[in-house]
Amino acid sequence: MPIPTQIDAVSVLCKANVYFDGNVISHVLQHANGEKQTLGLIRPGEYVFGTAAPERMDIVAGKCSVRIAGETEWQEYATGETFHVPGDSQFEISVAEGLCEYLCSFG
Amino acid sequence: MPIPTQIDAVSVLCKANVYFDGNVISHVLQHANGEKQTLGLIRPGEYVFGTAAPERMDIVAGKCSVRIAGETEWQEYATGETFHVPGDSQFEISVAEGLCEYLCSFG
Repeated sequence: MPIPTQIDAVSVLCKANVYFDGNVISHVLQHANGEKQTLGLIRPGEYVFGTAAPERMDIVAGKCSVRIAGETEWQEYATGETFHVPGDSQFEISVAEGLCEYLCSFG
Repeated sequence: MPIPTQIDAVSVLCKANVYFDGNVISHVLQHANGEKQTLGLIRPGEYVFGTAAPERMDIVAGKCSVRIAGETEWQEYATGETFHVPGDSQFEISVAEGLCEYLCSFG
């Protein structure tokens, strides 16, 4: 499934989610059917995120390295690529330079 | 007019606008009637922005100082406050600490 260039017919929460002193931020996109996505940006650094529901992470721009809990290897993802994280898990994500922009979908 | 907590029924462009090496970023919210808003964040620093159409800047979170072209004084704005910039003008905006989050409306 190609990564969308825009998300239609949503409500956007004006207050951003701010993590790691602003090095990771995202805005919530609320769909009418109750589904939620987040559109975010990651600055250089290494971060750990936990998951409740499974997550699909689409890389909108930039690149990152990801290691999902239980895996030994890091995987690299760039613009247009996608990775999946199981629910009730966690992943490490590292950005070496520039900004990594992502669209996160849940469930 | 109070600052909205969410913007409904919009399309959101996934690719962020990135300015000043990522210290200022925003996402475009496209309304069905053609109107556009941007939802953005400003990191500490001092920046200059030009305007084409007049702009209404709502401070969603944080605070900033602003000097609009032609004015000598800086004005401070915090969460919940709004400033207006004429079209075909420019403004200096400075954030001392933390993140300043804004909603920009045009016209």
